[in-house]
Amino acid sequence: MSLVQAWAAPAAGKPLQPFEYDAGPLGSEQVDIQVEHCGICHSDLSVINNDWFNTVYPVVPGHEIVGKVIAKGDAVRGLSLGQRVGIGWNVESCLSCRSCVAGHQHLCAKAQATILGHHGGFANRVRSHWGWAIPIPEGVAPASVGPLLCGGITVFAPLVEMHVSPTHRAGVVGIGGLGHMALKFLRAWGCEVTAFTSTPAKFAEAKQMGAHNAISSKDSKALATAKGTLDFLIVTVNVPMDWDALMQTLRPEGRLHISGAVLEPIPIKSLDLIIGQRQVSGSPTGSPEVIATMLDYVARHQIAPQVEHFPLAKVNEALAHLRDGKARYRVVLDM
Amino acid sequence: MSLVQAWAAPAAGKPLQPFEYDAGPLGSEQVDIQVEHCGICHSDLSVINNDWFNTVYPVVPGHEIVGKVIAKGDAVRGLSLGQRVGIGWNVESCLSCRSCVAGHQHLCAKAQATILGHHGGFANRVRSHWGWAIPIPEGVAPASVGPLLCGGITVFAPLVEMHVSPTHRAGVVGIGGLGHMALKFLRAWGCEVTAFTSTPAKFAEAKQMGAHNAISSKDSKALATAKGTLDFLIVTVNVPMDWDALMQTLRPEGRLHISGAVLEPIPIKSLDLIIGQRQVSGSPTGSPEVIATMLDYVARHQIAPQVEHFPLAKVNEALAHLRDGKARYRVVLDM
Repeated sequence: MSLVQAWAAPAAGKPLQPFEYDAGPLGSEQVDIQVEHCGICHSDLSVINNDWFNTVYPVVPGHEIVGKVIAKGDAVRGLSLGQRVGIGWNVESCLSCRSCVAGHQHLCAKAQATILGHHGGFANRVRSHWGWAIPIPEGVAPASVGPLLCGGITVFAPLVEMHVSPTHRAGVVGIGGLGHMALKFLRAWGCEVTAFTSTPAKFAEAKQMGAHNAISSKDSKALATAKGTLDFLIVTVNVPMDWDALMQTLRPEGRLHISGAVLEPIPIKSLDLIIGQRQVSGSPTGSPEVIATMLDYVARHQIAPQVEHFPLAKVNEALAHLRDGKARYRVVLDM
Repeated sequence: MSLVQAWAAPAAGKPLQPFEYDAGPLGSEQVDIQVEHCGICHSDLSVINNDWFNTVYPVVPGHEIVGKVIAKGDAVRGLSLGQRVGIGWNVESCLSCRSCVAGHQHLCAKAQATILGHHGGFANRVRSHWGWAIPIPEGVAPASVGPLLCGGITVFAPLVEMHVSPTHRAGVVGIGGLGHMALKFLRAWGCEVTAFTSTPAKFAEAKQMGAHNAISSKDSKALATAKGTLDFLIVTVNVPMDWDALMQTLRPEGRLHISGAVLEPIPIKSLDLIIGQRQVSGSPTGSPEVIATMLDYVARHQIAPQVEHFPLAKVNEALAHLRDGKARYRVVLDM
């Protein structure tokens, strides 16, 4: 096959440039996807900047990929040529560790990230193991499904994995790329939903997206009004918060769930856990099965992320738009 | 009825003295218990010292009480005169809040602690709501059951509430009053059990109590050998630990459970939660139903705490023995 036409960062923090590479022979369990759309995630910025010290340059970012299968190895299962699929944070896992065989492939210690030592979706083609190319069901719009595949699953999987119930009162901290999808998921889930944002200007929009209530996350008095009210509170930001006040919003047996990679350790008071029997948890993205479940769910509920589109040729403008905090609420590149 | 003959601390940190009080008229839902034995818990020391700033003096400590019903109000259910019962951290709860009606009375915000504004079991009699006087089943030795009623349930309830499975690999941090009971519970539960103690001299005894493995909690290299091995790790100490190393002992989807009131906030790294989808939780004692379940469980498995006995008249010596860290592993006063 011809060379892959992509955009790559040549070194940490550098603008992306056109980049060609030879994907090599297709493995028997692999598929090649012709990319149609690719979301931009904050973790693309982190990898471009080598924030996690594990970027391999040149790096082709992009791990919220939608496209069609254009080649498949002879051991590929369940996919056909021309089928539309989505690819998220991972393109491969070992399939033989305990997590993989238990269907929790996203917890595989050897999982291959789409953009770490592998080239991602800011390109005309991308390669994946068949098991991580998830069929896009009918009724899901290809142009806006991309952000569900990393950002969306990051806040959807906890609802499944942590057994959030439709009877729960749920809160979302941070109404941005992840948080706005969490509001939509939780509203359709049947929960009473409270949005916590540092930007009161987002209150009205948060309510349009599904929140019943909106509270300033920077206003300790406002947080105190929510004391003892929530069964489940998902944190989508990656900055230090008033953790004591957030823990205090939980009801007995409530859960604080961390989906944002907060860099500083979170100081948890043992008595906030003990009195009230509360929990703090975290999770990465999701397994292929839970991704497929999410896609069924958004098709049924007609849920889509709110996206802004850029052509691939304007990828550097699109990255700047996200970096500057201007995205409302996710950015998608069109190929 | 005659005055209650008790031992009380007249002020913070003072030795206990003989003390008489009038319990007043028996409420229609209350029972009076003639105390036979009463365990001493670290929280008795905390209350005597006013460590939590909520002690009411004079205070009669003692909340691991075994005795017989000698009087009951006319609305008491399920108990008969002469029946042997146990009383733990609580003597009453509101019975009408969500937690109470859900059977989680130990999470009631209005629960009445046995020794905070109420007189406890270092006495010939103690009073309780019938709902918190738990029948002691046949086959459970009265002289050693006391420590199960607070210390024991504190480490037993998490096995039930947090769904610990017999297939799990479990660890216990701190092999003292609570920890030694946790080892026995978990061994009988069917788990692979690892003891973590700062005192390697306890290794052999920990194995006699049920541990398959014993590791020094102060030895970072030893802790590293347990990396990624545990599904459930219960912390029974109340001092700062190498939290990073303890979190690293967890397998994917593992849980760190806090049963000791660690005074300093526990610094939890978000990535330790996110990568591996791990959880941190805590819990207080347990509900009446789970206490009853624990008593059935210890009767079936012939589990008892390891206790040392003192007569009530030597209560100050007994308190000093515990305060000095000499208890192996729980102290029981005999009336």
